[in-house]
Amino acid sequence: MITRIACFQGPESHDSANGNLALLGRLAARASDGGAKLLVCPEMFLTGYNIGAGTVGRVAEAIDGASIVAASAIARAHKISIAFGYPERSGLGNTYNSMVFIGSDGKILSRYRKTHLFGKFDRQAFSEGTEEPDVFEWNGMQVGMLICYDVEFPETARILAQFGADLVVVPTALMRPFEIIARSIVPARAYENQVFIAYANRCGREGEYEYCGLSCVVAPDGCDLARAGRHEEMIFADIDPQKLRDSRRVHSHLRDRRPELYGVLVSGAENRFKL
Amino acid sequence: MITRIACFQGPESHDSANGNLALLGRLAARASDGGAKLLVCPEMFLTGYNIGAGTVGRVAEAIDGASIVAASAIARAHKISIAFGYPERSGLGNTYNSMVFIGSDGKILSRYRKTHLFGKFDRQAFSEGTEEPDVFEWNGMQVGMLICYDVEFPETARILAQFGADLVVVPTALMRPFEIIARSIVPARAYENQVFIAYANRCGREGEYEYCGLSCVVAPDGCDLARAGRHEEMIFADIDPQKLRDSRRVHSHLRDRRPELYGVLVSGAENRFKL
Repeated sequence: MITRIACFQGPESHDSANGNLALLGRLAARASDGGAKLLVCPEMFLTGYNIGAGTVGRVAEAIDGASIVAASAIARAHKISIAFGYPERSGLGNTYNSMVFIGSDGKILSRYRKTHLFGKFDRQAFSEGTEEPDVFEWNGMQVGMLICYDVEFPETARILAQFGADLVVVPTALMRPFEIIARSIVPARAYENQVFIAYANRCGREGEYEYCGLSCVVAPDGCDLARAGRHEEMIFADIDPQKLRDSRRVHSHLRDRRPELYGVLVSGAENRFKL
Repeated sequence: MITRIACFQGPESHDSANGNLALLGRLAARASDGGAKLLVCPEMFLTGYNIGAGTVGRVAEAIDGASIVAASAIARAHKISIAFGYPERSGLGNTYNSMVFIGSDGKILSRYRKTHLFGKFDRQAFSEGTEEPDVFEWNGMQVGMLICYDVEFPETARILAQFGADLVVVPTALMRPFEIIARSIVPARAYENQVFIAYANRCGREGEYEYCGLSCVVAPDGCDLARAGRHEEMIFADIDPQKLRDSRRVHSHLRDRRPELYGVLVSGAENRFKL
């Protein structure tokens, strides 16, 4: 069954979670009108990303917090699944750079906490996720989630592929001059792992950060199904599981791996690289 | 110290190892005249690649066989290091899809046996290498080697980066329509691992195979230092270790890895992907 998905590329309204939830309602209506079964929004969509470490800690919410409950209602109202990034307060009081995937019935299907923190701000504001990425079932597919810098590590997408991912959903806040990630690394991840990837970036300025747009949905052959430019945009793409099966018959990387030779990948002690 | 290297993209003379050794002598002279300290030639350069599994077994030579001795003399005569692919007969009688790296003094610095065999012909003709890729010192750099399909697996280049590789040398025989490897995957490997990559492909037809050229030397920023077209060509590029050090200060992927989360990469039992 072919499934249409949408990625929103844009800035948030900046003023509050309430403002961004209102935006989410409008985006969900637009994506649903366009035939999409899933709307993917960027990293830290709920609050904005570059809001200061102190603010992050103050606005972080639990997975059952008011904003996630409101987002669930939006998903239910528009009969569309929604994935977006938000600052999460854990039961132990830690703050994570998280994302949630809500089904079209409003139920939370999965939550992921960013495992690879990027740069000084991420490390000041967030604890690093302690669980490896995993997959869940959605709409007949196995879906995995990563956030921004995570996808630059081939290990993360490979783990999801090993776990059976068909589609990897990646909210991001990719800045200039790192366009190579959106243009080359994301397509490489799709090809080498034989998965679809939906990569939803921000655009425009947010304080000293300038985001580079270029959100995309990439097929297992490494080619774009949809690609945004530099400005605010909603892109749509049709995900065809049959194309994935056909592609995996030609591209046998997942069964040609030699895990018995990969021990050094999990052994921190073996690192000999120089900085 | 900036080091110039050369990649030869072309078909072999096809008739015999002797014919290809004569070609190697001419190429070594040309590369050396161009200021290169290293000449990289394609996969199975010594004999041709698509020569039939039976022929491969017949022409395979030991690491100290007559052809490697002759290649060593060429390196010494032209004061240039040489890396190329050849079919190797092991002491136990196995045949490997191997490559050798010979120093400018004619000494063998390293040998590598392809660990990821591609398709029916590779599997008919060769045993798979049983040792993980490793690095060796050359000209003040740590150098690693991969062959063709190996580089499509992010694990291989990552292992070399973990072992400290500055430069990864990849003889290949990349066919159409797999141009995405030369154009996107090789640059992704350079960027995500912060290494230089020298990728030397064949071009033209060899029986039913049509090679796609596009040999390249790629920098740690993922950009081409040199890129061949579709036809016979020798490309040159200058490798600057200072640029690698500068790039690694900005791109901290190697120190931001989370190996404690990567266990599934070495556990064949965890595979849940569907074909």
